[in-house]
Amino acid sequence: MRPETKDQLRSIVGEANFSDQLIDLVSYSSDASEHAHRPQAAVWADSAEEIQAIVGLANAEGFPVTVRGAGTGLSGLSVPAQGGLVLDLGRMDKILDISIGDRVAVVQPGVVYASLEKALAPHGYVFPPDPASGKACTLGGNVGTNAGGVKGAKYGTTRDYVLGLSVVLGDGRLMKTGNRAMKSVSGFDLTRLFVGSEGALGIVTEIILKISPKPLATATTLAIFDDLEDAGRAVSGVMASGVIPSVLEILGRETLKAINQNTELNLPEVDAMLLAETDGYTQGEADYQMERVVEQFSAHNAREVKRAESASQAAELWKARKSCYAVLARLRPNFTLEDITVPMSQVAPMLRGVQDIAARHQVQIATFGHAGDGNLHPQFLYDGADQDERGRVEAAAGDLFQLAVDLGGTLTGEHGIGLSKAAYMTLEHDPVAMDLMRSIKKVCDPNNILNPGKMALDV
Amino acid sequence: MRPETKDQLRSIVGEANFSDQLIDLVSYSSDASEHAHRPQAAVWADSAEEIQAIVGLANAEGFPVTVRGAGTGLSGLSVPAQGGLVLDLGRMDKILDISIGDRVAVVQPGVVYASLEKALAPHGYVFPPDPASGKACTLGGNVGTNAGGVKGAKYGTTRDYVLGLSVVLGDGRLMKTGNRAMKSVSGFDLTRLFVGSEGALGIVTEIILKISPKPLATATTLAIFDDLEDAGRAVSGVMASGVIPSVLEILGRETLKAINQNTELNLPEVDAMLLAETDGYTQGEADYQMERVVEQFSAHNAREVKRAESASQAAELWKARKSCYAVLARLRPNFTLEDITVPMSQVAPMLRGVQDIAARHQVQIATFGHAGDGNLHPQFLYDGADQDERGRVEAAAGDLFQLAVDLGGTLTGEHGIGLSKAAYMTLEHDPVAMDLMRSIKKVCDPNNILNPGKMALDV
Repeated sequence: MRPETKDQLRSIVGEANFSDQLIDLVSYSSDASEHAHRPQAAVWADSAEEIQAIVGLANAEGFPVTVRGAGTGLSGLSVPAQGGLVLDLGRMDKILDISIGDRVAVVQPGVVYASLEKALAPHGYVFPPDPASGKACTLGGNVGTNAGGVKGAKYGTTRDYVLGLSVVLGDGRLMKTGNRAMKSVSGFDLTRLFVGSEGALGIVTEIILKISPKPLATATTLAIFDDLEDAGRAVSGVMASGVIPSVLEILGRETLKAINQNTELNLPEVDAMLLAETDGYTQGEADYQMERVVEQFSAHNAREVKRAESASQAAELWKARKSCYAVLARLRPNFTLEDITVPMSQVAPMLRGVQDIAARHQVQIATFGHAGDGNLHPQFLYDGADQDERGRVEAAAGDLFQLAVDLGGTLTGEHGIGLSKAAYMTLEHDPVAMDLMRSIKKVCDPNNILNPGKMALDV
Repeated sequence: MRPETKDQLRSIVGEANFSDQLIDLVSYSSDASEHAHRPQAAVWADSAEEIQAIVGLANAEGFPVTVRGAGTGLSGLSVPAQGGLVLDLGRMDKILDISIGDRVAVVQPGVVYASLEKALAPHGYVFPPDPASGKACTLGGNVGTNAGGVKGAKYGTTRDYVLGLSVVLGDGRLMKTGNRAMKSVSGFDLTRLFVGSEGALGIVTEIILKISPKPLATATTLAIFDDLEDAGRAVSGVMASGVIPSVLEILGRETLKAINQNTELNLPEVDAMLLAETDGYTQGEADYQMERVVEQFSAHNAREVKRAESASQAAELWKARKSCYAVLARLRPNFTLEDITVPMSQVAPMLRGVQDIAARHQVQIATFGHAGDGNLHPQFLYDGADQDERGRVEAAAGDLFQLAVDLGGTLTGEHGIGLSKAAYMTLEHDPVAMDLMRSIKKVCDPNNILNPGKMALDV
């Protein structure tokens, strides 16, 4: 990047909001994935107009722009893979409007998920997707990745709640999509084209979100299974029983072992543990659904079923699940959290497949995930400095993706493609779909300025 | 269309599945809207391969292809506005798979909504969008229009249930999007780009739908209001009360009058009537929500609130709502059912605005609609042969659309743009959004073969 270009960036955002200091460039070279690449400069923008000027300059000068929220992504989405500029939206952190009457919140992209949660709480409302990184991640990042969480089976993902957007396209033009109405079929669904587009089509500057009333009652149950396939069949059984739990999480044997090694929880080291939550306005509604869930657990040979009798008991049951990520991340020098999703009936075969793949490639994989929507997180634990082990992990990951697709599923349920899965896109998408994605990219970002190198879109 | 071209079409679909007989061409010249234009030929295809061959021929010969399901559309979506070929998908009517274990149904586009409903009923499952034309309309049409119905506020629209598609693009290539998994963030959301695209981007040949368990309990209440604004405020009050009714319908004074003139229902001719339904697995859950609804009705001066004590009483309360369309359609020689949607808090101002517009232009407008998601159906009743009245109706419609957009809403909540609202697209969409839609159209259908003349996409 030429010194003159840096000066132009300074004049757009102000001296204080530009940096090419090493410490910033190093910070902005990575996210929560294993990927890293150093940018040449970073800016903190605070308006659509500034972003338009930055994107205009990028087009004129030919440098890449990678937009960044909180950098909590797990697939390298905000890693500036080809250098250039990191555009941090953290300053655009205003909640512009909360209207309970309209069931709408209007926010800037840099608002942290938890800030919106806190602002909605006094009204008894939530923005339901509830990503695991909610305390840190931004709503712009949620839109860019179509973020989801433990409640996806019942409440869906970010996509289901975005009513409208303001977007600066890759060619610098500002566009509005959607509106504040609960439904619209006016023109093509441009809004959802941008949800999950990983910063490759445009930069979101304002978001209109649908919000929902918070359920008033819950029921929580934990079940342990000696046999993994029984647990998988219990999951399918629950999802076919006519109720939809708000949570149905699974923890595999390796995960339970790791939790025991790092906590005082003393979990039984069985094949699998399931954690279920049901909800409603009334306790009777939550209980009715939980009875159906427990019937399925029992029908599929659960060794033990523990039902929480109080909020504190429920919190106790949640402890194991909440510790998973932190505990597993600590076990070996490196970890990669995968994110495949399979049809509901294929949860048991997928879990067995993960075990087979681990054995075949002699790698350590600990699995947990959102069984209720078929989204499993097999976590590879390895030493990245060990070239041989690294190679085996990569080969195992390839097998994992192939199996998910063979079972009728997808490479990623909530973490996105980014850099991590770019090489595997064609496993899932046919050449016509790949070509259409590339053509849409070209329409929105003709000079390939926005987040280049991601999603296998570079031709 | 040249005789040789017709012969080629005959050889693709078989002699029996081709027609250029006047009776067929007249049938295929219109849908349920006021628009009509005669095609030059019609074919009944029964496979993706046949459709690819037809679209290939259309590109080579330059004739338009307008795809058609049951022709129940209200905006001219399946009217062959520039002649050419009508492609009827009625023969592609197979339910390919129902998997309760996967919560998935896989269908061909010509399956009638009610047929899927019937096939799912024994399992206790539904495909929730429930369009008013469900007995006749096809699932391909539901996808093409992103169809919705009375339960949109709680259960969303077709978009929320489409997991994957097979599509023949306008250039003749076959593409698959999505999969059978409950969630995926792999690549751009091509699936939802095609939902609601009105047959202008591609022809859907297979649909993977998410299905849902049917609620087991309902509560139903009807309330009458002397003052329209009170009714509108009651709607906003309900939607801000923390519950989401499965149904919240409104019938205005003109509609109630019309029903009384044509039925024995003897409704009170008040400013507005609201019909609410709540649901759940348990009666307690449905009742809890209905208590919140009734509180709002009472707080906003409902003159009378009738709660159904039995299924037959509930059916009685539904009678007025179910008769609306048929009754209103009979009153004058012509009718146009509008479909604007406004933010929840703007229902009362919109209802008042409709009355003002009717008075200002001296036209008859009877309103009913899905108040629970802000989707109102003002129905224009007029004599199309009276040029002056027709002109006033058109002017009033323009004012109606402008008001909906000014209030933060949209031209159409569920009927689509088609021919009816093509001229108004720019009221709602900025020039950049219009340009992006046109560019996407060009990418998918470079020769503008598919359903030309709709949605203001022709440049």
